[in-house]
Parts: sequence; structure tokens; C-alpha cells
Amino acid sequence: MRSNLPKIISIHCLLVIICFAPYENIMSQSDLSSPSFNNTLISVDKNIAVSDWSLTASDLGLEGDWSVNMVTLRGGKQEGVKLITMDNGALTFTVIPTRGMSVHTVEKGTLRLAWNSPVKELIHPQFIDLEANGGLGWLDGFNEWMTRCGMEYAGHPGMDNGRMLNLHGRIGNMPASEVEVIVDNEPPHRIRIRGKMNEVYFNGPNLELWTEISAEPGSAAVRFEDQLTNLSQKEQEFMVLYHANFGSPLLEPGSQLYGSIKKVVPFDNFAAEDIHHWNTYGGPINGIAERVYCIYPKADSQGNAHFLLQNSGGDQGVSFSYEVEQLPYFTQWKNQDSDGYVTGLEPGTGFPHNRSIERKYGRVPVLAPGGERVFRIDYLLHTDKNSVTAVRNKLMNEMSTVEISKEVISK
Amino acid sequence: MRSNLPKIISIHCLLVIICFAPYENIMSQSDLSSPSFNNTLISVDKNIAVSDWSLTASDLGLEGDWSVNMVTLRGGKQEGVKLITMDNGALTFTVIPTRGMSVHTVEKGTLRLAWNSPVKELIHPQFIDLEANGGLGWLDGFNEWMTRCGMEYAGHPGMDNGRMLNLHGRIGNMPASEVEVIVDNEPPHRIRIRGKMNEVYFNGPNLELWTEISAEPGSAAVRFEDQLTNLSQKEQEFMVLYHANFGSPLLEPGSQLYGSIKKVVPFDNFAAEDIHHWNTYGGPINGIAERVYCIYPKADSQGNAHFLLQNSGGDQGVSFSYEVEQLPYFTQWKNQDSDGYVTGLEPGTGFPHNRSIERKYGRVPVLAPGGERVFRIDYLLHTDKNSVTAVRNKLMNEMSTVEISKEVISK
Amino acid sequence: MRSNLPKIISIHCLLVIICFAPYENIMSQSDLSSPSFNNTLISVDKNIAVSDWSLTASDLGLEGDWSVNMVTLRGGKQEGVKLITMDNGALTFTVIPTRGMSVHTVEKGTLRLAWNSPVKELIHPQFIDLEANGGLGWLDGFNEWMTRCGMEYAGHPGMDNGRMLNLHGRIGNMPASEVEVIVDNEPPHRIRIRGKMNEVYFNGPNLELWTEISAEPGSAAVRFEDQLTNLSQKEQEFMVLYHANFGSPLLEPGSQLYGSIKKVVPFDNFAAEDIHHWNTYGGPINGIAERVYCIYPKADSQGNAHFLLQNSGGDQGVSFSYEVEQLPYFTQWKNQDSDGYVTGLEPGTGFPHNRSIERKYGRVPVLAPGGERVFRIDYLLHTDKNSVTAVRNKLMNEMSTVEISKEVISK
Repeated sequence: MRSNLPKIISIHCLLVIICFAPYENIMSQSDLSSPSFNNTLISVDKNIAVSDWSLTASDLGLEGDWSVNMVTLRGGKQEGVKLITMDNGALTFTVIPTRGMSVHTVEKGTLRLAWNSPVKELIHPQFIDLEANGGLGWLDGFNEWMTRCGMEYAGHPGMDNGRMLNLHGRIGNMPASEVEVIVDNEPPHRIRIRGKMNEVYFNGPNLELWTEISAEPGSAAVRFEDQLTNLSQKEQEFMVLYHANFGSPLLEPGSQLYGSIKKVVPFDNFAAEDIHHWNTYGGPINGIAERVYCIYPKADSQGNAHFLLQNSGGDQGVSFSYEVEQLPYFTQWKNQDSDGYVTGLEPGTGFPHNRSIERKYGRVPVLAPGGERVFRIDYLLHTDKNSVTAVRNKLMNEMSTVEISKEVISK
Repeated sequence: MRSNLPKIISIHCLLVIICFAPYENIMSQSDLSSPSFNNTLISVDKNIAVSDWSLTASDLGLEGDWSVNMVTLRGGKQEGVKLITMDNGALTFTVIPTRGMSVHTVEKGTLRLAWNSPVKELIHPQFIDLEANGGLGWLDGFNEWMTRCGMEYAGHPGMDNGRMLNLHGRIGNMPASEVEVIVDNEPPHRIRIRGKMNEVYFNGPNLELWTEISAEPGSAAVRFEDQLTNLSQKEQEFMVLYHANFGSPLLEPGSQLYGSIKKVVPFDNFAAEDIHHWNTYGGPINGIAERVYCIYPKADSQGNAHFLLQNSGGDQGVSFSYEVEQLPYFTQWKNQDSDGYVTGLEPGTGFPHNRSIERKYGRVPVLAPGGERVFRIDYLLHTDKNSVTAVRNKLMNEMSTVEISKEVISK
Repeated sequence: MRSNLPKIISIHCLLVIICFAPYENIMSQSDLSSPSFNNTLISVDKNIAVSDWSLTASDLGLEGDWSVNMVTLRGGKQEGVKLITMDNGALTFTVIPTRGMSVHTVEKGTLRLAWNSPVKELIHPQFIDLEANGGLGWLDGFNEWMTRCGMEYAGHPGMDNGRMLNLHGRIGNMPASEVEVIVDNEPPHRIRIRGKMNEVYFNGPNLELWTEISAEPGSAAVRFEDQLTNLSQKEQEFMVLYHANFGSPLLEPGSQLYGSIKKVVPFDNFAAEDIHHWNTYGGPINGIAERVYCIYPKADSQGNAHFLLQNSGGDQGVSFSYEVEQLPYFTQWKNQDSDGYVTGLEPGTGFPHNRSIERKYGRVPVLAPGGERVFRIDYLLHTDKNSVTAVRNKLMNEMSTVEISKEVISK
């Protein structure tokens, strides 16, 4: 029988390694010649999944009062879910590595990009069965501000060439295999939360998605910059919807949507009946059906589309811009029902029909073997009237030329 | 490179906090002005999931030799399952927070409320696919003495208005989001194990179930008192079956069921053939089909129904009572097959047909928006002949007036 | 408020127990009268799941430089997966307790029994939905060298008597409930990695599988010896395929399969077209369909069949032998597609059709109540030309008598 003493010591060392190794990495990479401060929080390659972690500007010897931390959630259906919170000194956002790097909330003072889903917990994918309930299992976990739909398929559940597709695909319920926090070494020291998922099965797609959400310290802007790669040696269809969902305070009776838009087409007859109010919002109504509008964005000279959602008083809003070529369609989802009052403003590679329909209308793009696509969206939070007005004024002209369809979208 | 020393110390502190914080809470709440000793074991709200925990009467400065503990199970399909054991000095019971607060076993000396399922492990929901196997996935984890079926639906799998419903619903394979052990500050210091599940998805039901199983120190009685709340702003159907399952020693050749019963109706022809033995039990037979009887309980002047299951010799038994208005139907499931010899005695809001059938016959109740229902069942364990006889004698008269149906139940 | 000091001490003790109890067991069992050195790594019965563990020859006071260790994988879909690595001094193999004791890789120098699946992670079953994607969910985790298909059913997905069966059954995505490492006390001190899974549900099969993979120190041979027991009191059908998959370096243009074979029957017309090259392999081709050959092995005087897969140059190979009575059918799966270039050489109780077809042709065996079956396969790794040639020469005569079917297999 050996003494336990050395064993106890080795356990201490193990704990230190587990808890602090990433932190040590930071220290060793704070060398000025390093291109960035790179902190691995989760890594299949390195066999790491940090439980709790934090980083501040001063840890890196930088100015500013920003911070990033990650915690592990406990209890119920949240058990084991990782949650990253980034506070850049001006706004905070939360990222859920365990749920496909979805962004739960962005906050800047009283302005929140978020909504009040009846689902309150951040549901671990182990408790989600995407094909359950006729392919609606995705709704069991739906509560984030921003969740990506895709990547092999997105849209409504149903059969496509003999195969059942679940609502909005698999990427939003897939834990990230690699998660890193990168702080640019050069000013303005942009802080980047990056995560990778692989949507792959044998004899199926082999899509790799590197997501990035980032912000500069002190800025009111948040940027998504995702890269999708087809690792297969075959052509691969894909679909993506950036399902961004807005409730209070931006959504309220009198809220309005502005955008650089060519055409608005109602999804169905119920949406068609209200088409002349497509860009304004009513208050919550118990039991009302959703209205969906299929929007064709218009690119400016740089190729970008621009949108603004503002509250009723026009003193809070969010504007966003992205390249139309990458995300040529835009879905406005008006869900006025009081159990989950929300509007989805969703740039995408298509509309949210089942893939079988989207394919028929040529809205399912294909990646060549080894091919890549980048999706970049810039969000800007507006917390005063001047800021909202400035954006709205730019978009006002655009709105006068929007073509309103008298027909519902074909399917 | 910093010294590791302060880090080691901080880890110690962290461990102490994780392991003992709930215990510290007890201490701080032992003040006499407190209404109860309240210990949070699992909480999404507080981000707590205690790994191992225990509490004794003396920890609270109370008399008696009762205890409650929680452990985390390891290995196989039990990995991560929480198990609470309550020993009130007279009996013990085990509660599984990870499996919808089901009760695995109640024991008092040689009397056990339990059965010998071929499924031995307490299966973590991560390994259950409820819709698998034609909606029979629930059977992969079925081994508890008491499991609740519900709450959006219960009963047999099958289509209901175009939607596939799995056997016995989802609540029994849902981890509790909040779990607390409450000890009443006032004598007799009832010990309450409470747990909350939310059965909710976007555009679906939003049902909150607070379960409670409790006992007084030294008592042979166990009480369920569950509260179901409709958090939606819409009316919501629900179903619940208290699927209590009894094997040896209470179930054996010659065991008998007594109850305050209006009518017994066989579920099918096979049950009909044996209807005149509905309240007695034969021994295990290899390969025999189940027999199910649909029972309409009769309320006494206080509105309660009463039942007794006794062993062959009449020296062990369990009696139980509950309000007929809350649980107006009662299913007796006689599963004589030797692979899982068991009888289910199941107070419910309906019978275990698929919801489509139960709805047709008016047995699917509806909760108004914000509406609540309470389900309370009191079980009493009898470990001697006098105690069994006293209950049986009270029910003997009731039995003489039971109407035996010549027809099987309509569906 | 009590002092924390004793609590801290007790935590140290707990940690020591958790981390080192198995190791202590070894010490206490190193007594010469013990039949073996038995180390429990995972046990539902003992409530143990060791996180990290290792054992070397010298820990047991034995000669040789072999070692066994187990680690817990972190991140992505590997989170919580256990991985055992055995190095017997001559070869190493890796076993995945969390995935049904599948063997990921066997390595001896540059010779690897493994393949390059597009699925890179060792996927935790919590992220697998076997019935998803039309019953093809198994493909989400398919990347091991050896995965068992079964045990209630194996083969292609589809309906069997009104029940949906998923591809290749459940056993490969079931965590082991008991895992132990046994080192024989007697020379040559064979090292055995053993694991148990129970494939059971109420009113369904109750199959217990004890798997064992073992090797002697310093040997180039690896042995599987699995025992399947029907714990039910009813007869039970079962199916098993030892789905062993070979990529580079053994699979390359010019690789060849030799075996003691009665007959080769193509699975379909595409395989039939190429039947005269059934035992040779071409290189990877993008987009080519799989070819499957149904092989009827021939037993030698001891009842054993023998096979050899060799590389093009004949200087690397693997040979294997097993009793034909236990595994009377053999499937050769030629998957030349460049996204997962692989050949499966699969001894089985049948061919990989859906169970409904296999039953029709009498290839679904039945276990009596309490009945047992043992499946033993011996693999030998050949790393030089002489060793390969010796085996090939023995099989060359056998090959000349193989009957080549002109028809595809009936179904």
C-alpha cells in the first residue's frame, strides 16, 4: 500500500490544469509578435472543455473594461450547457456553444435583442428529438435571439424525395466541437467568439461551419461572419436562414420595419389579407396565426441590403446590413400571438418552405467539392432617436419603391 | 507565470461551495421564524445541481432519525441520473429527479412497493427516444413503482389529428428543473421532496407540473400532491395517469384488489373473458397477454375513492385514497406475464387509450389559461394482518355493489 | 457555522476514492492466489465510472511494457465519451465503452486496422437518433474499425411486421454498463477488456451481451470473444454482424481478399456486373455505388473459416478465423467511393438485409429462454511479406473452388 500523499498532489495539479490551462495559454500568447490572443474553450482536437472561464482586458494588459466569460449551466434541461457572455463595455451578448453557437440575447442598456419564448431553459440537445412531433422537435428549444437554420436543409418539415426533413435542420442543436475566443492583437482589438460544427454523416453531406460573432470594445455593433465549407468530394446542396427573433422592446404596437427591398410577397392567404400593413406591427393577440412575407432585398452599389427595425416611438432600433449575393432572400415572420410575441427577420439563401419546394424554385444553392461560402451580417444597436432617425431617413426612399405582390408566393 | 498556490486555494473554496452550499443554507434557515427548512438540490434558476448531498434530523436540531440524501449515479445508461432517498424512520422511498420525479421504490421492512421489470437501470432520458419503435420508446425506461404519464397526452401511441403521440407522454422522461427538499418547521415536520418540470414548446402546450411526495417522520403514509398549471394564454388539454406498479410481495397468486367502485369494464375481449376474476390475481405465466379493466371509482361523502391491494395471506397491503373529482377514472392493469409480472393501479383523468379515443368519450380535460389542477393521493403501507383487515372490512361492502360490464369499453 | 476544515479534508478523501479506488483494488488483488487482476472502470452495480485511469505491467509487478488506460473525451459530440487504449507492447487498440465497446483502431507500426470516415468524432449516443433520417441515424457515428450490429436486429432499415427497424440495430450506440480490465494471473497474462450491454425493454427482448477483446502481451493477435444471453423467459430472435471496416493501408488498388469460401453471391445487379473481380479491390472513385457480396464460408476440420485481406504488395495484411457454426454468413462490402473509401468484412448470423427478408430465408437465429451464444473471432496482423505469404498460400487452394453465383441473392 503506497502513501496517498503524492496522489493528492497530483490531483491538485490536475485540477489546476483543467481550470487554468486556457488562462495560461493567454499569458503565453500575450507576446506582441502574436497575431491575436487565442483562447481555446472547447476543443475536440485538444480534448478540452473548460467548465468556467473568464478573461478581461486587463488580463491581456489592454485598456478598456470589456470581459468574456464562459459558465456551465446546471439543472433540468440546461444540464451541461455552456454559455459565453461577452461584455464589450457598451453591450453584452450571450453565445451558446452547446446549441450551435446560437446567440441568446444582445443587450445595450434597456435595448434588448431577444424575445419572450414560452421555452425558458437553454435546452441541451440531448433533450431534443428533432424528428419528434412530425419533425417539429426544434420548437422544444426555440428561444434564442439568433439561431441559424440549416445547413443541409432548413425550412418546414416534410418529405423531400422520400426523406423526412425536420423543421429548420440540425445546426442549431449541434454542440460546437471547437470554440475559441480571439482578441485581435492590433487595435481596435476586436473580440471574436468562434465555434465550429460539422454536419456530417457517412454517405451524406460533410459540411463544416465556422461561426464567428464579434464586436469591438466599446462599440454598439455586432458582426456575424460565418464560413461554410463543403468537405465532401461531391457537390452539396445547402440552406441557411439567419433566424433572428425580436420581441420587446423593439416589437410593440407601432413598431416598423424598413429596408432596401424590391418586392414583398405574402406566404399565404392570411398574410395576403394584411399585406398593406406588412411593415408595421400590431400588439399581441391571443390565438392569431402567424403572417409570413417573402422579401426580395435590393443591393446598394456595394452589393449590400439594409434593414431597420424600430420601436413605436422611434427611439430604439436595430439596423443590419449584409451582402445580397450571399443571402439573396429575406423572410419576415410576424408572430403576433401572445404566447411568444415575436417577429423573425431572416436573411437566408431561400425562403422557409420545405427543401423540396425551395429546390423547385431554384433557391437551394450548391457548394462544389471543397467549396466555401461566407455569410456576414452587421448589426447596429440604436438607443436614441437621432440614431434611429438617421438610418430610417436613408431607407425611407427605398420603401417608396417596394413592389407589393397581389399573389401569394408559388409553391 | 504566476504561482499556482493561490489558485489551489481558490479551487478548494470552489469545491466547498459546490458541495456544501445547500447545507449552509439549511443552517442559515434553521431560525425558528422560518416557515420551513428549504434545501435546493437542483435549480435552473440558481444554476445548481448538487452532486451528492445529505440531511438528517439532527442537522436541523430536530428529534428523530430520519434522513434524506441525493447521489449521482454513474455508469451505463444511469450516467448522471440523480437519485434521492428519503428514510423517515419508518419507511424509505427513492425519487428520480432526472426521470420526472418518478418514485422507484417504497420500502417498509419486507413490504416493497416495487416490481421486477426486465429493465434494471434507471435510464437517463438522453438514452430514451420516446417516438422510437412505433412510439413505444417509453418502455425502454419503464421500471419505477410510480411514474406519471402525461401531461399533454398519455395512453397508447398512435395518431391523433395527424400527429403521432408516443406511449404515455413525455413527463416521465423529463429531468426536473427545480428540486427542493422542504422540512416543515412546525411539528410533525413533514418532509417534502418537490420537483418541477415544464412541458412546453413554442406554439404548443405550456404546462408546469410541480410534484411533491412527502411523509411525516415515523409514519407509514406517503403522500403525492402535484400541481399542474397551464402557463399558456390558451385552453390546453391534458391527461395524467398515476401509473403505480406493484410486483412481489404484494402481487402473488391470491392477491386481491378492493375498492370503492361503481363499475368495471373490460378493455378488450381477452380481459372480458376473465372479468369475474377481475379483482383477484393469478401467478406469473409465461407468454400470457395483459388484461386491462377500466374502473369507475365511487366517491365517499368527502369525495374520495379508496382502494386496497393485499397479498394472498392478507398480512401485507397498501391502501390509497384520492379525490374522485380530480382523477375520475382508474385503470387496473394485470400483466401476468412472467417477464415483468406486475399490476398497475392507475388513477387518472382518463383511461389509457390514445388521446384521440379519450377525447371522443369526453375524458380529456381542459385547463383554462392560467388554470390549475391539484392531484393528491395518499398511500398507506400495511405490514400486519390487523391493519390490512381493518381497511378491507371498510371496503367489503363497496365491493358487493360493483357493476360488472358484459361489454368491453367502447373505442 | 461550523469550521470548514473537516469538510475540506473529507473532500480530499472523496477525490482520492473516486480517482484511485480501482487502482487500490488492483493492489489488493495482486495476491498470487487471485485468479486474475480485475479492475472495474465502469459499473452500474458499483456506481462507478472512472474518469481517467491507467495500468502498466509494473503496477502488477509483471514483466513487459504493456499498458492500458482510459480517458474521458471532451468537447463537441465527444463530450463524456470514454476511450480505452491498450498497448500490449506489440500493437495498440482503442475501445469505446460509450459506443457499445466498439473498437476504433488497431495499430501495429504502420499497419492500421481503421478507415477514414467523413465522421471524425467518436459520437456520444446522446447525439445519435437511430430512427432519424429514415432509420439511417446510425451513419452519424459510423467510423470505427469494428462495430457490432445487432442484437435484436441488424441490417437495412425498414418495416418488419409493422415495426420500423433502424439500420444495424442499437448495440453500437449503447453505453456499456459494466467495463472491466482483466489481466490473467497465469502467464501469458492475457489482457482482456470486457464490457456489458443490455438490450432490453419492457415487453421486448432482454438480451445481455458481454463483449471481450483481448491480447497477450507482445502478440500480434487480437481476439474477440463475446457472449450473448437471452435473459427473457421467451424465445428471442437475434442478429449480429461483426462490421469490421478496412481502409488504408490495407485497402488500396490491388488489395485482395482470400478465404475459405463455398460460394459468392452478389447482393444486387451492380455487384453482379463486377462479380469476377469480387476479391480484388480498385482505388477510390468519386460517386461510385457500393458493391456487396454475400459469402458462404467453408469450415475446416475444426469448424473454422479463415480469411486474409492483404495490401497490393502483399507485405501487410490481416487474417482472421472463426467458427462457422456461430457466424455462418459473411458479407463483403466494397465501398469504393472516395468519401469514405472502405471495405467491410463482416462475419454474421445473416446478411445485411432487413430482418423481414433475413427471416424469410431462415437467417435469423433464435435463442431459447436463458440460452447463450458465444462469438469468437481471432485477428492476426501481418507486417511482413513472409507472414502474409504463409497465410495466403494456405488459402490459395480454397479460392480455386469458390462457386461464383450468376444470380443476385434472393430477397
